[in-house]
Amino acid sequence: MLPFTLTILGSSSATPTSNRNPTAQLLSHGEKLFLIDCGEGTQVALRRMHIHFQRIRHIFISHLHGDHFYGLIGLISSMHLLGRTKPLHIYGPPVLKQILDLQLEASLTTLIYPLEFHPTQADGPEVLFEDDHITVSSFPMLHRIPTTGFLFREKPYERRLRKDMLNELNIPVHLIPLLRRGDDYTAPDGTVYPNESITIESPSPKSYAFCSDTAYFEDIIPVVKGSTLLYHETTFMNDRIANATDKFHSTTGQAATIARKAGVKRLLIGHYSARYDDLQSLLDEARAVFPLTELAEDGSVFEIL
Amino acid sequence: MLPFTLTILGSSSATPTSNRNPTAQLLSHGEKLFLIDCGEGTQVALRRMHIHFQRIRHIFISHLHGDHFYGLIGLISSMHLLGRTKPLHIYGPPVLKQILDLQLEASLTTLIYPLEFHPTQADGPEVLFEDDHITVSSFPMLHRIPTTGFLFREKPYERRLRKDMLNELNIPVHLIPLLRRGDDYTAPDGTVYPNESITIESPSPKSYAFCSDTAYFEDIIPVVKGSTLLYHETTFMNDRIANATDKFHSTTGQAATIARKAGVKRLLIGHYSARYDDLQSLLDEARAVFPLTELAEDGSVFEIL
Repeated sequence: MLPFTLTILGSSSATPTSNRNPTAQLLSHGEKLFLIDCGEGTQVALRRMHIHFQRIRHIFISHLHGDHFYGLIGLISSMHLLGRTKPLHIYGPPVLKQILDLQLEASLTTLIYPLEFHPTQADGPEVLFEDDHITVSSFPMLHRIPTTGFLFREKPYERRLRKDMLNELNIPVHLIPLLRRGDDYTAPDGTVYPNESITIESPSPKSYAFCSDTAYFEDIIPVVKGSTLLYHETTFMNDRIANATDKFHSTTGQAATIARKAGVKRLLIGHYSARYDDLQSLLDEARAVFPLTELAEDGSVFEIL
Repeated sequence: MLPFTLTILGSSSATPTSNRNPTAQLLSHGEKLFLIDCGEGTQVALRRMHIHFQRIRHIFISHLHGDHFYGLIGLISSMHLLGRTKPLHIYGPPVLKQILDLQLEASLTTLIYPLEFHPTQADGPEVLFEDDHITVSSFPMLHRIPTTGFLFREKPYERRLRKDMLNELNIPVHLIPLLRRGDDYTAPDGTVYPNESITIESPSPKSYAFCSDTAYFEDIIPVVKGSTLLYHETTFMNDRIANATDKFHSTTGQAATIARKAGVKRLLIGHYSARYDDLQSLLDEARAVFPLTELAEDGSVFEIL
């Protein structure tokens, strides 16, 4: 099973505060680092946490409100100034490319590494990236401007071979990949060994769903269903539901309701309005609906398991 | 005499580090706050220093390298989200307006306060702003892209009246403004009192010259001549002079030479390469040429007097 962890780099909404950066999260899966949103100050947050940001290969931007991307151009520039050579893939709304290009041109900067921009769209779900281990897809959220959530889903792990049976039956090496995928084993004497007798189950694949920013939106429930960890924004508490609705944001109670209806394993809330100094009341409101809720706070790390 | 102070919000060059923001300075003159450059993280630096940033009415951007303006769009957005109504004046290279507009449009933001953009040019000196107390002008620097320095010069203070003479001669109130400006006083009996006998000298006007970024450039000497405080970039030390020249930056020794040749009162150095953890050697190098040198460090405050 590959290590799968989430680091919160920013948990504030709209404006940074003295102790909370705007939205940015680092998702680490195996050797890979994915950055999700990149509010102002993200590069310094990465430095302070001693995360070598040149290792990030893929950056996903949910939408073009400043608190989700104003730190991107600075990070891209620093990667350049610090001698990056590996490609960087950025996934985000099409206009983001223009915004980056205009700023690079203004400084007469030609990046010394390849920047590959992949435009996203908010009309329906879409697979953005996949490799042998993970699939990253986007899905529409309900916000004032086109916005996507992101779903990071591990691919099923292959079954693991029972070493005792491997030795006892003297199974040829070339058959091992087939057995891992579920084939039965037929011995030279014709005896058939069902796959279950020679392999054991692997851990079930884990998934992380990132939902920020959005009004209460039940369309996302089938998409994030059963997620190992669901991050859902909670800009306000229930007593400001009119404010939340008006601004296409969610309350803590609404976030927890989505988590419950989607049957996720754990819920993480964040994107707090600057009005909330103490987050305990938000946590209480969420846990009343969905007990397995945690608070995203700058610098906190969550294992996805 | 109006209070005149400079607060360093960022002293790093190129990339922010864990403990140094990129360039930003807050100049306070009387009741006015001027922001000079606005690297990423400036709004948080202002918050952490408990500076009410809505009081800033004028922002001056020297050039479009990211470490001098990537924090501007976030500051503008936060001013909007926090309910600003007063106009904001931004002075900078023409393309800056496009960069700001594109980002505001992408987020469907119509600012709720007037933003007045004043394009600068780097072909020659230019007065950007003046009121009864101060004049702000720009002047060209020698950098890889069009760049200006900024000179903040107090207007001459009026002479102060001697209260004893005012009472003794029973000088009519309506003449006071003329005497402050230097007129002699003619009494009803025809006696002429020279201005020097009824007024005393006021403090001499102070000035602050901001020079970042630039290669060694003697053309600025007549412009910054006699400044009360000169800020001059020093990206490198003398042992990396080739590196500095190549990148259109200055060494510490060069900054101090400009200060000496311009006969300024004090020199402030900053815009340090991230390679320098300990700044003492930069200070020593500068002081060997110009003893009255100080180090700009994030959070430090200098009185201009």
